[in-house]
Amino acid sequence: MHEALRAYIEKYASDKITDADFELVKKSFIFKRYKKGQYLLQEGEVCKYSAFILKGSMRQFSVDAKGIEHVIHFGIENWWVGDRESLTMLTPSKYNIDAIEDSEVLLITSEDLQQLGDQLPTIGKMINTMNQRNFIASQKRIHDALSLTAEDRFLELQKNHPDFLQRFPQTMLASYLGITAETYSRIRKKALK
Amino acid sequence: MHEALRAYIEKYASDKITDADFELVKKSFIFKRYKKGQYLLQEGEVCKYSAFILKGSMRQFSVDAKGIEHVIHFGIENWWVGDRESLTMLTPSKYNIDAIEDSEVLLITSEDLQQLGDQLPTIGKMINTMNQRNFIASQKRIHDALSLTAEDRFLELQKNHPDFLQRFPQTMLASYLGITAETYSRIRKKALK
Repeated sequence: MHEALRAYIEKYASDKITDADFELVKKSFIFKRYKKGQYLLQEGEVCKYSAFILKGSMRQFSVDAKGIEHVIHFGIENWWVGDRESLTMLTPSKYNIDAIEDSEVLLITSEDLQQLGDQLPTIGKMINTMNQRNFIASQKRIHDALSLTAEDRFLELQKNHPDFLQRFPQTMLASYLGITAETYSRIRKKALK
Repeated sequence: MHEALRAYIEKYASDKITDADFELVKKSFIFKRYKKGQYLLQEGEVCKYSAFILKGSMRQFSVDAKGIEHVIHFGIENWWVGDRESLTMLTPSKYNIDAIEDSEVLLITSEDLQQLGDQLPTIGKMINTMNQRNFIASQKRIHDALSLTAEDRFLELQKNHPDFLQRFPQTMLASYLGITAETYSRIRKKALK
């Protein structure tokens, strides 16, 4: 069950982790299942855990005053979800995180993750790499949201995450791209021609 | 000259730095002046330095195929600029960074900053806090770009960075918000009524 996490750590740390150290890591995580539609986090709560996804998929989204959902992140196997602002500042979250499919995750508190990072150089390195990747992905998403047309945003998504297009409902994909479901449907048809 | 950097370190590390440690820090930075319009980084180059702004302001922007500029970050006093993707992955940058006003900065390479972080716990803590703040700010910017109307994005900017509205040309502010100069001008007039 923890093998995916171990592979992730070693990939992101560019280093092996000893069995003894990995035993410490395992102890800090809680295994949990989420049924499709079940919430890991609801708006207004303080986010307690980062979740490493073993199986399934999740999304982080806000709901505006008109009741419209805005998906800001998707998470699939070997990705993390969690509202980092709420996790680190201990403020009530503006976001919801729910399971798009039946999912299995490993949960860890920020405190435990930080402690592991201080204690084990491998985890420290993994956290550094995660921060860098996160920042790079965020910068790209900001850039694309501000500078690309809806059509080009769709094409970027198709290029970088073709699996998303198969896996997630069109309404969620449209929301992730910041466009209406109608626009999404039109662009998709045109792109598939 | 380095006092602003020292204050920044101590604020972000929530800790004092000793004179001896700060001497080490100072040695890793290079002081440089940029005239208004001068480039710290040009598209296609590998970004060598992160810049801590002592005086003045800078912007990070891309130029699309039609020649339109897209501002993704502004930097003012006590902020950092630099293309982190290029800095960490050593890939040619997709961005330009230039001085909006005559500016004075302290430059440091990623390697030197990383080394300082490993060597001095105060700098390690500062880097952690910077990463967290960066990530939170990026998440907010993604959320706003995707879910807010142009008008609400303007109001958020006015609330969080009223100084930007005075300090930067309207064309740059419009670009930062992902809207045309005409839309910006209309929204601004309406908001000031």
